[in-house]
Amino acid sequence: MARAWTLKSRPQGMPDHGNFELVDLDLPALGDGQIRVRNHWLSVDPYMRGRMNDMKSYVPPFQLGQPMEGGAVGEVVESKADGFAPGDKVLHMLGWRDEAVVDAAGVQKLPALGVEDEAFLGQLGMPGMTAYFGLMQVASAREGDTVFVSAAAGAVGSTVVQIAKAKGMTVIGSAGGADKCAWVKLLGADAAIDYKEGGTPLVKKLMDAAPNGIDVYFDNVGSDHLDAALAVARDHARFAICGMIDVYNDMRPTELRYLARIIQARIRVQGFIVTDFMSRMTEFYQDMGAMLQAGKLQRQETVHDGLDAMPDAFLGLFSGGNTGKMLVRL
Amino acid sequence: MARAWTLKSRPQGMPDHGNFELVDLDLPALGDGQIRVRNHWLSVDPYMRGRMNDMKSYVPPFQLGQPMEGGAVGEVVESKADGFAPGDKVLHMLGWRDEAVVDAAGVQKLPALGVEDEAFLGQLGMPGMTAYFGLMQVASAREGDTVFVSAAAGAVGSTVVQIAKAKGMTVIGSAGGADKCAWVKLLGADAAIDYKEGGTPLVKKLMDAAPNGIDVYFDNVGSDHLDAALAVARDHARFAICGMIDVYNDMRPTELRYLARIIQARIRVQGFIVTDFMSRMTEFYQDMGAMLQAGKLQRQETVHDGLDAMPDAFLGLFSGGNTGKMLVRL
Repeated sequence: MARAWTLKSRPQGMPDHGNFELVDLDLPALGDGQIRVRNHWLSVDPYMRGRMNDMKSYVPPFQLGQPMEGGAVGEVVESKADGFAPGDKVLHMLGWRDEAVVDAAGVQKLPALGVEDEAFLGQLGMPGMTAYFGLMQVASAREGDTVFVSAAAGAVGSTVVQIAKAKGMTVIGSAGGADKCAWVKLLGADAAIDYKEGGTPLVKKLMDAAPNGIDVYFDNVGSDHLDAALAVARDHARFAICGMIDVYNDMRPTELRYLARIIQARIRVQGFIVTDFMSRMTEFYQDMGAMLQAGKLQRQETVHDGLDAMPDAFLGLFSGGNTGKMLVRL
Repeated sequence: MARAWTLKSRPQGMPDHGNFELVDLDLPALGDGQIRVRNHWLSVDPYMRGRMNDMKSYVPPFQLGQPMEGGAVGEVVESKADGFAPGDKVLHMLGWRDEAVVDAAGVQKLPALGVEDEAFLGQLGMPGMTAYFGLMQVASAREGDTVFVSAAAGAVGSTVVQIAKAKGMTVIGSAGGADKCAWVKLLGADAAIDYKEGGTPLVKKLMDAAPNGIDVYFDNVGSDHLDAALAVARDHARFAICGMIDVYNDMRPTELRYLARIIQARIRVQGFIVTDFMSRMTEFYQDMGAMLQAGKLQRQETVHDGLDAMPDAFLGLFSGGNTGKMLVRL
């Protein structure tokens, strides 16, 4: 018998605890090519908010009354699949539950990179790939560039900061609150902007932090952050649009005062989804693995304990509750 | 003695006749490398609105009390420059006046392509290059694509429609009013959207016209048009942002309801300026010249007569006064 969080109702705007229900789940007997996994680490990520809506998107919506899904790291406890044996550590997508029966085709054994298991849900997992390919490929960031990254204390943003520094860029990160900003600076950022600090508009703060403008913007937030980036973008700046957490729970339109600068500064704004880069996993492990082993990347996790805490962890993503990657440990 | 339109005052919002003053101008004696040109055709273009503001931009602002500038086609009447003789037809940038002394370095002799002189201010000039490189290079448009172009009855938009059709694309154009829409269809567009027709929101009209979505958006307008294009963009759509005439006279922010689609559809939005493509003029003349000679491009001009009419022509750009290229004939 497993336990799993199901989607009880679809949120209108900001989700709350009432949208989730923890249920008992009968696990089926293993079929050929399947494994049973005991989960040790569960991921919560902002993109999951999108799957709670009943809308066509790049991943199908969560179904009402059904277990939710998400990244998970666990240990094989039973296997009817070639290449998997009890004790193997694996990464798969049936999170939000303590135990799962999974098709081996959707499971990846953790590579031996000498890092802790939970890193494969963060810097060496989807958030890390998002940071890496978003910065280096989508935004075509190069040594010498000035990079602005929003939500720089988040799982993706904090990795962007560190990759950019490791690659010889100047980095400005935004985060909410003095503690997070201090951490962003500790990660190596040349400047940190506290977007919650009252009084000064964000665009003014960014102009002060980047008096010569920015070459790259890595967007996790949207709205005012995107507008400020448009205001200070240098000629031929590249924006990688990774997320817009400001609008996920909000149907208000985005107001942009500086959008017309896209023309005179010839700005390129490109949305992307990390799964488009899955075929380049090897390149990612090589480059990120080398940076990790060289001590150029620091990890930080915000950890909640126990399956019961899963909704708290998820909801915390939208209230600034995490520094670094948000995880639940079972 | 020449006559020239000067910028008398900088407009706040929509310009009016009070911003312009027609003055007499003493022409200097010709220096070495200079020519004197009698202008026959003067261009007015939306980008000139930007030069009326005292703001740093890709072209310097017009100076108060000084003659304005812009594209002009005329005839050499006196020359102290090698390679230029009286009677030569030339294209240069000292428009808004009837006669000018110009450095030959900034002057181009009209190539012998067998078209009328004024075409070099339109389809074979800056608007044509804007349409050509914006569509083919910036938006990477390809045979089989579905292309949406706003202000499709304008100088740039009407050329985009025709190039796209000549290259085997499906084209939807927007324009204001039934007459303009009829002309856009005459140019070959598969569908024309009358954005002024009341009742139905633009996004709904575009969904009806492009039930399978769009691959390319060529933006001359911004605001609601851009938002509608975001709403219906297919995966990996490319937007070429050429102009935002809706915001040139207006300090209101742009409201976008569908901006977050840039992520899931991996949309690329790229601003551009035609002058970045000046080094590729030969390629442009070859491809456009061939399309013209094959009868694949129709020209249309809205012509005002006489230097006195210059402000009328310019202001008409912002009230939908032109079909095709807006020109003043002297």
